Amino acid sequence: MPQLRQDVATRRWSIIAVERAKRPDDFAGKRKAEKLPAHSVTCPFCTGNEHMTPEPVYVVPGSGPAGSTGWQVRVVPNRFPALAVPSAGDARKRTKRGLYLEMNGCGQHEVVIESPDHSRTIATMSVEEVTAVVRTYRERFLAMDALDWNQLIIIFRNQGEVAGTSLAHPHSQIIGAPIVPEDIRSRLDQAQRYYDDNGTCVYCDIIASEVADGARVIGSNPGFVAICPFASTVPYEIWIIPRRHASSFGVLTDAEADLMARILRETLAKLYALLGNPDYNYVIRSSPHYSAGEPHFHWYLEILPRLTTAAGFEIGSGINVNVVVPEDAAAQLRKVT
Amino acid sequence: MPQLRQDVATRRWSIIAVERAKRPDDFAGKRKAEKLPAHSVTCPFCTGNEHMTPEPVYVVPGSGPAGSTGWQVRVVPNRFPALAVPSAGDARKRTKRGLYLEMNGCGQHEVVIESPDHSRTIATMSVEEVTAVVRTYRERFLAMDALDWNQLIIIFRNQGEVAGTSLAHPHSQIIGAPIVPEDIRSRLDQAQRYYDDNGTCVYCDIIASEVADGARVIGSNPGFVAICPFASTVPYEIWIIPRRHASSFGVLTDAEADLMARILRETLAKLYALLGNPDYNYVIRSSPHYSAGEPHFHWYLEILPRLTTAAGFEIGSGINVNVVVPEDAAAQLRKVT
Repeated sequence: MPQLRQDVATRRWSIIAVERAKRPDDFAGKRKAEKLPAHSVTCPFCTGNEHMTPEPVYVVPGSGPAGSTGWQVRVVPNRFPALAVPSAGDARKRTKRGLYLEMNGCGQHEVVIESPDHSRTIATMSVEEVTAVVRTYRERFLAMDALDWNQLIIIFRNQGEVAGTSLAHPHSQIIGAPIVPEDIRSRLDQAQRYYDDNGTCVYCDIIASEVADGARVIGSNPGFVAICPFASTVPYEIWIIPRRHASSFGVLTDAEADLMARILRETLAKLYALLGNPDYNYVIRSSPHYSAGEPHFHWYLEILPRLTTAAGFEIGSGINVNVVVPEDAAAQLRKVT
Repeated sequence: MPQLRQDVATRRWSIIAVERAKRPDDFAGKRKAEKLPAHSVTCPFCTGNEHMTPEPVYVVPGSGPAGSTGWQVRVVPNRFPALAVPSAGDARKRTKRGLYLEMNGCGQHEVVIESPDHSRTIATMSVEEVTAVVRTYRERFLAMDALDWNQLIIIFRNQGEVAGTSLAHPHSQIIGAPIVPEDIRSRLDQAQRYYDDNGTCVYCDIIASEVADGARVIGSNPGFVAICPFASTVPYEIWIIPRRHASSFGVLTDAEADLMARILRETLAKLYALLGNPDYNYVIRSSPHYSAGEPHFHWYLEILPRLTTAAGFEIGSGINVNVVVPEDAAAQLRKVT
């Protein structure tokens, strides 16, 4: 019989299809043999093509010679922003259009070019390189969070075409949005209810419970724990959760950035080895601006490999069908060295 | 500047990327030239292969000779059900597993084989054929709704590989679930708040507003209206809404089934012609069992073409980025004859 499991933090249910559970090799069709070149003359994110992007808003200097190759990480505004920096007026203003509400798409949309090397990805970078990326996330998060129209900041990475990217060069994106969407409100509300009932942060309780149990732990270090969550929505879903309670990603210290880089790189390298460089999205789930100090929410990084396709049932119900048992996924990932 | 639009029924926001709006031809890469044969010897849903599926639970007799070709629509239990019919015990029982809740994956999962002809799809069937499918939906909905573990019934169709199906033979699926998920609770709650504030059903108000405006209407008949919703989450999203207020799909009359079949077929034929047989999901959003009589919810059918990919931002925020303006989508679809 399939299992229904509830995410204690969001109260969302997943179906774990224990009887038709798949092995890592069942996803081998998604494997990519393709080896990218270290440089591509047509890639706008490669060295020498810096003129193909807008001026950078943030740069981590590289160890190479100055000029076009003198950067390690480069943050540029997205040329086709999903949400755009407002020029004037009230960025919060809603307009009634008949029955409906609309507003200007105010916000901010930046691209974090993670390396000058076209062929790298987080899983194959050095710890120092990933640390530079993580610190860049924090710097841009803080800069965007200081602007009053950015009420919610989403840091995310789309790896591979199935995960929604067309550019192979290693990059992440950061979007500031002027609203707190229903999906986020719901997550905050459920966490708050848990806090009201228990007096503790549900994510802190998850960490304690998972570390004590161990079956879903992939790895850990003094700052972070990586787990396959109990009610994983997709095969090999992974959460990387900071041990220190903090609602907002923005409070990350330099020491924590280093520890986060280590576990992120290590975890993605395991995923890369086990599943053959699978496409994935990851997203940092941080509190909205006005909930930055809340005792009930806790930021974390969520990795969602794109091995299966959400179809009509998932769309219609909000229940995901997961064909890999989370304990099996964690055990397989733990074993990868 | 991009636009943010709110769905008045769910309070969810979409970004309408007006400046990078795409034309139908921009999605031409998704077009499929492939013409399917009318029969496939290896297809478990084709005539002559009836032994490859479990025994049918419902059959619409065909006009052909009796026996293997004597059916028009055939409903069989899914061989690998996402949720399974419980054999005994309390189907509602939750079990505490440490911090978490789990329960048996009780429910029901059926496949509606829509035609004996391997090469057909709703867009290319006759009205009579589609009417038989719609009436079958209703009959199975009512049969499943009468079983007390099916609290929510999702009727859906996955067209094409991108939409999550591997079997080309025309078919839909119906899943009964033993829970009312958070996503559905949220939709009901928002509709109820609207009702409390206005004394009217938000979907009834949407129909009146859209018919009066006309800009987002694709087509209509005495029973139904087809629109591209104001805050469409994806390019060419379509809602087919019944004019008669009803929370549950189960109350559909025979006359309404005929009108629903006509507008569904006509709308999907327009989509097929405009975008070259695109992959899509459709889902019937009906109330859960215990909300069947509610004045604030209103069932409808939602069509979501799979032309773009939800990525990290959509996953992290719940805000969709839509690169086709809904008024343009509706105008293009209206023009198709």
